[in-house]
Amino acid sequence: MSEPSKQPIAVAVLGPGTVGREVVRLLTEHAEDLAARVGAPLELAGVYVRDVSVPREGLDSALLTSDAEALVARADVVVELMGGISPARELILAALAGGASVVTANKALLAAHGPELFEAADAAGADLYFEAAVAGAIPIVRPVRESLAGDQVERILGIVNGTTNYVLDEMTQRGLSYDVALKQAQDLGYAEADPTADVEGFDAAAKAAILASLAFHQRVSLDDVYREGISGVTAADVAAARENGQVIKLLAIAERADGAVAVRVHPALVPVSHPLAGVHGAFNAIFVEAAAAGELMFYGKGAGGVPTASAVLGDVVSVARHRASGGKGPRESAYAANPVVAIDTVFTRYSVRMNVPDRPGVLQRVAEVFAAHGVSIETVRQASGAGTAGLVISTHRALERDLAATVADLRGLDAVLEVTSVLRIEGE
Amino acid sequence: MSEPSKQPIAVAVLGPGTVGREVVRLLTEHAEDLAARVGAPLELAGVYVRDVSVPREGLDSALLTSDAEALVARADVVVELMGGISPARELILAALAGGASVVTANKALLAAHGPELFEAADAAGADLYFEAAVAGAIPIVRPVRESLAGDQVERILGIVNGTTNYVLDEMTQRGLSYDVALKQAQDLGYAEADPTADVEGFDAAAKAAILASLAFHQRVSLDDVYREGISGVTAADVAAARENGQVIKLLAIAERADGAVAVRVHPALVPVSHPLAGVHGAFNAIFVEAAAAGELMFYGKGAGGVPTASAVLGDVVSVARHRASGGKGPRESAYAANPVVAIDTVFTRYSVRMNVPDRPGVLQRVAEVFAAHGVSIETVRQASGAGTAGLVISTHRALERDLAATVADLRGLDAVLEVTSVLRIEGE
Repeated sequence: MSEPSKQPIAVAVLGPGTVGREVVRLLTEHAEDLAARVGAPLELAGVYVRDVSVPREGLDSALLTSDAEALVARADVVVELMGGISPARELILAALAGGASVVTANKALLAAHGPELFEAADAAGADLYFEAAVAGAIPIVRPVRESLAGDQVERILGIVNGTTNYVLDEMTQRGLSYDVALKQAQDLGYAEADPTADVEGFDAAAKAAILASLAFHQRVSLDDVYREGISGVTAADVAAARENGQVIKLLAIAERADGAVAVRVHPALVPVSHPLAGVHGAFNAIFVEAAAAGELMFYGKGAGGVPTASAVLGDVVSVARHRASGGKGPRESAYAANPVVAIDTVFTRYSVRMNVPDRPGVLQRVAEVFAAHGVSIETVRQASGAGTAGLVISTHRALERDLAATVADLRGLDAVLEVTSVLRIEGE
Repeated sequence: MSEPSKQPIAVAVLGPGTVGREVVRLLTEHAEDLAARVGAPLELAGVYVRDVSVPREGLDSALLTSDAEALVARADVVVELMGGISPARELILAALAGGASVVTANKALLAAHGPELFEAADAAGADLYFEAAVAGAIPIVRPVRESLAGDQVERILGIVNGTTNYVLDEMTQRGLSYDVALKQAQDLGYAEADPTADVEGFDAAAKAAILASLAFHQRVSLDDVYREGISGVTAADVAAARENGQVIKLLAIAERADGAVAVRVHPALVPVSHPLAGVHGAFNAIFVEAAAAGELMFYGKGAGGVPTASAVLGDVVSVARHRASGGKGPRESAYAANPVVAIDTVFTRYSVRMNVPDRPGVLQRVAEVFAAHGVSIETVRQASGAGTAGLVISTHRALERDLAATVADLRGLDAVLEVTSVLRIEGE
């Protein structure tokens, strides 16, 4: 039994939402256990709220304060759970400047201002931890930053947004349309009334930027991330995928290629045999391909007050332990500076689905278009209807800009009535 | 870019096997990258081999030494990859006593002598890291010890032996018998000529003891682990499981119950919808249930020279980084001392398969036996044959000793021709 004889470590919580309340509850209920793990007691210095006159369920009103600056000034560890850019950014910078360690779950802030914040932490010799900002409860920061520190990450494929995974999974399992599945997600509280941040991939793009920064030891910002959401995915796309032994997932992809780094978020066709295909409902998972370790996957809940609080508290214990022992965790090393390339230079496989007239010579005309742009066809599947036929062409690996040019030409061809979908194929 | 201006850190590798050679290769090839991550260069001090006159592919003969004590004495970080108890134990103790940090992949040693080694590390103020000893390349030590430090692990279900998972997966996917699947695993190098350590669950039991120690912050030794292997699993068991929507996996289970801890390794029926059911071939996975984080899973390669070297090198970077910054990692805290209970007090669900005469009244007689021992039946499935019937009874949660008494009585009943298998049901 370690003996926490040391000075208490003062913890400030900024933000009284579900995660904040859960962090306060765990800090209180597990105080003895946490003191043993840290080597010093953790003491709740206060909870910042905008308006102290509003009663907060589960929070002692004596702990509430609307003076965030004063709270930060008397804290050893600041837990930022407010979300948004301002005043979260200013308060974190003030905390670091004052020598406090910071734990944050704020993905938008890290994706937008990560370099500034990590530099401030380095300059202050303080820790800035952010496990909860990447994939909720799933431990991914320590595995990538520390366990794989002697390895090289080649690619990350992540399901990092629970709302979109729920919607796509319902479309897959029950054949629902996008609109019905989204409505159901909203009714169940998995999606917001305005679902844009989730369904258009903004949330996933912020996480992709953070994951890429971690994996490749360099700064990758939100502006570097190509982004497509799932609002264009139809029940017909899902059905066509199933016929081909695939499911559609919204993936955050960060990969190394030829000395460059590419980061993108888009719906993708994944073979049903791939571990990511088995990630159902609102669960998240991050699939990592490393040079020596091979394939790894980390699976769990990507959101929710209680699971997120687990990740936050793990970080609080780490940074508090460093303070109790007079040390500091590994710095957020960003020593690499590979160029981050745009989507048009990405190489991957594609599935192009189109309606064509059901008459001889059409396939030849279509194949000529692919060949003209140097895009090699791997498989062709055809399903005839009344006078028209559905044609699904899967390509070998091709350059995104060649594929885009192919699709543009297909759209101009009389032998093609409609290009109904273009999806990238990943995980093969 | 950090500037590794510090003194080089001398790394000794004990054991010239596939993992050792791979560690040496990565240390050499990635020297610059590793120096940036550590903050000081890593310098290979030598490789211990029993006989220096045997040429070792991939190892510079000038680095080989048969004087392990002298090598350990001049190292800052000792990487123990010899396996076995002696002299690995003595060399690790000597390294720690001399102030060196130690990284080991030796699960047998940790399961047998963990407490002694961790106490020696604590006394010396040195790190003893062991990521590769638990599940090969899968990062599990840092997630459980650090990321979940503010949470409480309730249960771990692990597929921690690739050989047995390969054999069971081949039986499941291809309907092979145990003997044929094992022979195939041996031919492909997934199983040893003498497969006892794998198929009888000894390897998994050692890992279960280490996992339980980690998860519950206390010492759990190999003697505390109940163990059953897979050599009794038949093609008929696998087929019956499939009919019931289940697969058979060898699980290492560590769980908390009523202030006690139970640790066991045995074949178990897992629903096909459970994430562990999708772990195929020689892959490993560790499924964690935590109070706040909920369900987490960590998936990857549990063995092999290159993947294991990734985990070893991650630990080398961590302990070297601590040395470069004058610190030490979190100690292997063992402040809890819950009783470790025997298998007969475990509560779980069971599936009992038996052959019975195909005549009226049999099910009633069988049901009476379950009721007499307070074991509640959940489902009964019956498949008639020529004069006999296969009966599969799944129970609600019951105490192991009550189930054992039930099975003993069933075996003595004329209404039961044979009890063909008794399997625990997990993951529901």
